[in-house]
Amino acid sequence: MAFSAMIHNHLPATVNAGINRISAINAHREVVFDHPKTNKATNYKGARRLAESLSSLLNLHIETPLRKTNLQQSNNWDNLFHEEKHDTPTTSPKESVADKWRELHGSMDWNNLFDPLHPWLRREIVKYGEFAQATYDAFDFDSHSEYCGSCRYNRNRLFEKLGLTKNGYKVTKYIYAMSHIEMPQWLERSHLMDTWSKDSNWMGYVAVSDDEETRRIGRRDIVVAWRGTVVPSEWYEDFQRKLEPIGLGDSKVEHGFLSIYTSKDESTRYNKSSASDQVMKEVMKLVKFYEGKGEQVSLTITGHSLGGALALLNAYEAALHFPGLPVSVISFGAPRVGNCAFRDELDELGVKTLRVIVKQDLVPRMPGIVFNESLEKFDDITGTLEWVYTHVGAELRLDVTSSPYLKRGFNPLGFHSLETYLHLVDGYLSAETTFRSDARRDVSLVNKACDMLVDELRIPTCWYQLANKGLVCNEHGRWVKPRRDPEDIPSPIGSETHDHSLRLEMQQSYKMLYAS
Amino acid sequence: MAFSAMIHNHLPATVNAGINRISAINAHREVVFDHPKTNKATNYKGARRLAESLSSLLNLHIETPLRKTNLQQSNNWDNLFHEEKHDTPTTSPKESVADKWRELHGSMDWNNLFDPLHPWLRREIVKYGEFAQATYDAFDFDSHSEYCGSCRYNRNRLFEKLGLTKNGYKVTKYIYAMSHIEMPQWLERSHLMDTWSKDSNWMGYVAVSDDEETRRIGRRDIVVAWRGTVVPSEWYEDFQRKLEPIGLGDSKVEHGFLSIYTSKDESTRYNKSSASDQVMKEVMKLVKFYEGKGEQVSLTITGHSLGGALALLNAYEAALHFPGLPVSVISFGAPRVGNCAFRDELDELGVKTLRVIVKQDLVPRMPGIVFNESLEKFDDITGTLEWVYTHVGAELRLDVTSSPYLKRGFNPLGFHSLETYLHLVDGYLSAETTFRSDARRDVSLVNKACDMLVDELRIPTCWYQLANKGLVCNEHGRWVKPRRDPEDIPSPIGSETHDHSLRLEMQQSYKMLYAS
Repeated sequence: MAFSAMIHNHLPATVNAGINRISAINAHREVVFDHPKTNKATNYKGARRLAESLSSLLNLHIETPLRKTNLQQSNNWDNLFHEEKHDTPTTSPKESVADKWRELHGSMDWNNLFDPLHPWLRREIVKYGEFAQATYDAFDFDSHSEYCGSCRYNRNRLFEKLGLTKNGYKVTKYIYAMSHIEMPQWLERSHLMDTWSKDSNWMGYVAVSDDEETRRIGRRDIVVAWRGTVVPSEWYEDFQRKLEPIGLGDSKVEHGFLSIYTSKDESTRYNKSSASDQVMKEVMKLVKFYEGKGEQVSLTITGHSLGGALALLNAYEAALHFPGLPVSVISFGAPRVGNCAFRDELDELGVKTLRVIVKQDLVPRMPGIVFNESLEKFDDITGTLEWVYTHVGAELRLDVTSSPYLKRGFNPLGFHSLETYLHLVDGYLSAETTFRSDARRDVSLVNKACDMLVDELRIPTCWYQLANKGLVCNEHGRWVKPRRDPEDIPSPIGSETHDHSLRLEMQQSYKMLYAS
Repeated sequence: MAFSAMIHNHLPATVNAGINRISAINAHREVVFDHPKTNKATNYKGARRLAESLSSLLNLHIETPLRKTNLQQSNNWDNLFHEEKHDTPTTSPKESVADKWRELHGSMDWNNLFDPLHPWLRREIVKYGEFAQATYDAFDFDSHSEYCGSCRYNRNRLFEKLGLTKNGYKVTKYIYAMSHIEMPQWLERSHLMDTWSKDSNWMGYVAVSDDEETRRIGRRDIVVAWRGTVVPSEWYEDFQRKLEPIGLGDSKVEHGFLSIYTSKDESTRYNKSSASDQVMKEVMKLVKFYEGKGEQVSLTITGHSLGGALALLNAYEAALHFPGLPVSVISFGAPRVGNCAFRDELDELGVKTLRVIVKQDLVPRMPGIVFNESLEKFDDITGTLEWVYTHVGAELRLDVTSSPYLKRGFNPLGFHSLETYLHLVDGYLSAETTFRSDARRDVSLVNKACDMLVDELRIPTCWYQLANKGLVCNEHGRWVKPRRDPEDIPSPIGSETHDHSLRLEMQQSYKMLYAS
């Protein structure tokens, strides 16, 4: 999503025409007439030129023919997908991973787990990816809503609403962020005057494993999931003067990310304290509580796109504050964040980072790739930037062409989509082999917010939507936007109440532990 | 809808960019980021140029300031709309209109009922408009569906599913149409290989008033509602050679409309008989049946856009075949259909036509307005065409600027939308006065498939959509497109069964009538 916005911002209208056209056709299929034959040729021209520029830059073969795969490729997709797959569960039984957990979280830098990808690691990656995906799925993007930019559900209902209770975690705290730096379009804002917040967005959450999952993984795992939304375009426009120091050494990071992570303002409702303050306070509380109970505790931070960048800043800070606490980052499609000193310091602090990237996705190449508006092509300036921004940790590199379910062709939105990432992780065996034939994750999810699945699968594009955009017909026959359930209305006071109820819960669980 | 497609076909990519951009932003609000500030200026340029060309041609004032209206205009839309309107019914009590019914259906050519608009006539117009709207609301536009181009519900559930049972009619027959003429894009086609039909679309239905409504209106009213869908662009490209004779006199009509109305092919599943044959056979059966019971019977034909054109052809044929049967047409945003002789013959046959048009809508000016691609402006060729195509009947002329609920600004899709028409009819008092303050129809409906409502109302644009585009999560956790209920799967054999069940119903109702 963020990436699509970037493309829009930096391409001339004609190129946007092609890209918008695709979205418009897909989104409106139910209400506006689709007439591909006459128009596509004209409107795709811009997109094609863009694709050519990109593909030559990235040495991609856009129209790669389907590779032979482990799947029995046949023209009969009905049999392949509909009959074989519809009636099988999307998950396999869960094994206890307690003994291997430290390794799964990078204690050996994942050296022995990538080739082939260990099935337990695959499951862990998908689990954290789904935590990150939840920050999109529950986000209120409706600019006509007074709650635009908030989470649609309160923290006690989030996982239940999204079908994620199966993961065995419980949300304990929502994180809000703002920014002092003028970064157009990272913040979702309501068009209305009277809104829940003018300055802040819901930016993620803290969750903790329940007793059952804790037993399975052998420790109390605290998760922080960060939402990604920033428009990458803003990062690199003048990145040279936008590196800012972090910590006491030579570490420097992109100042836009840092601003979102650290900004606060007494006059706001949700950011009297910064995202950093909020998350660190919550993690501190949880660590103290569970360590006080004699449990092993770990911290795993996840995020997609901008969320991956925030995850790294968060991990840096947490590792500084909690020496000895295992801190790992599992990020998806994240951009570069800081300089070599930042990378080295993260290493020294023992932060283990697993960066999942898709080869065709441009965002992980940022900052370092710019769109030359006059030449209408992309320039790779990574060479000159290498000394400035650098990636950290281990990289799990996925390839769109490995999946027989995915369309070929230039699709920046699809390449960057987190659901595309999770699909490719699910099918990944090794860099040499192709898509796993026994992958079970629901393929339909890929098209939630993009157009990546081959037509034969008959999955609508961008299908993740509310019935009638949330309008309901009331008893008088009028279509109205229902008020949110009071318990789902964001409120800084409410969050204090949550803190209180968390304390009660903790006290109770503490008592129970000692009673048993 | 049809009109938007026309615009797309005949404008260069840059203009489309602006128009698509609007749709894309609106449709994707929930999943893609909206960033109006940077882009709108560029992308709207094309649309603005188009708007200027159109407005100078039509002598429109695009940015007309809001007129003083009967409504107490205030900045506080919350009070105006949310509190005052949300909790009132959308309909008023129904009076018996039996005595005035012939007048309401044009026996005096509506001379005495337009200024001010008689409230009973207003209700009748809205009733038939809703019958026409049903053909859009229930149509399967999903090109990934094997039933694309069919009605989503069987005829016994249609009104119930759309909340139209209140009108007191019962659907007796579905009408399907095809065309022998190459008219790209009038036919909705599935992308799939195995589909319910390759050649035909659901094109409308026949319904008949139930006993209660029959008592209220003083006669058994047969309704034919035609769906509009054709892309107007195709009509005028070579309209001079496309007038075809109809009937035995000098009457001529546009051959594209005629082709849809009369085409049949033995090799098809749904058009072994033409739309004309299907509808005439059904009307014949109903007329015979109810006249046989000694009832007064009437035929009212309605449609929007292309549907309005088909309604006129249908009325012409019915009037020829049923001398003495009162035949009236209530059409919305319909284009011109035939020549003066056609108009005169309709007059002589006693067909009463009420054409509802919106001043800003271009479709009623067609054929007669063309887009000059090289100059990128519209040319009005109505002057030279007047002798060829002519409108028939009485015209009720609505004005978008009369409603304080509607946006100003160029919006071809919105101007042509049937829901916009129904909203304006609901608020219409006379050409001189402005919107009726006691209009009760739900304003939200206007934005079903366009972006016409002022932002203050907080009604999402193009909101008429299925949850997750019809995908549902099955018991295995997979998102799948559920199979249609067997009873809703279109089937030519099924329709025979319907005929059979209709016969049974009729026999039964006949027996009951004589038993009572």
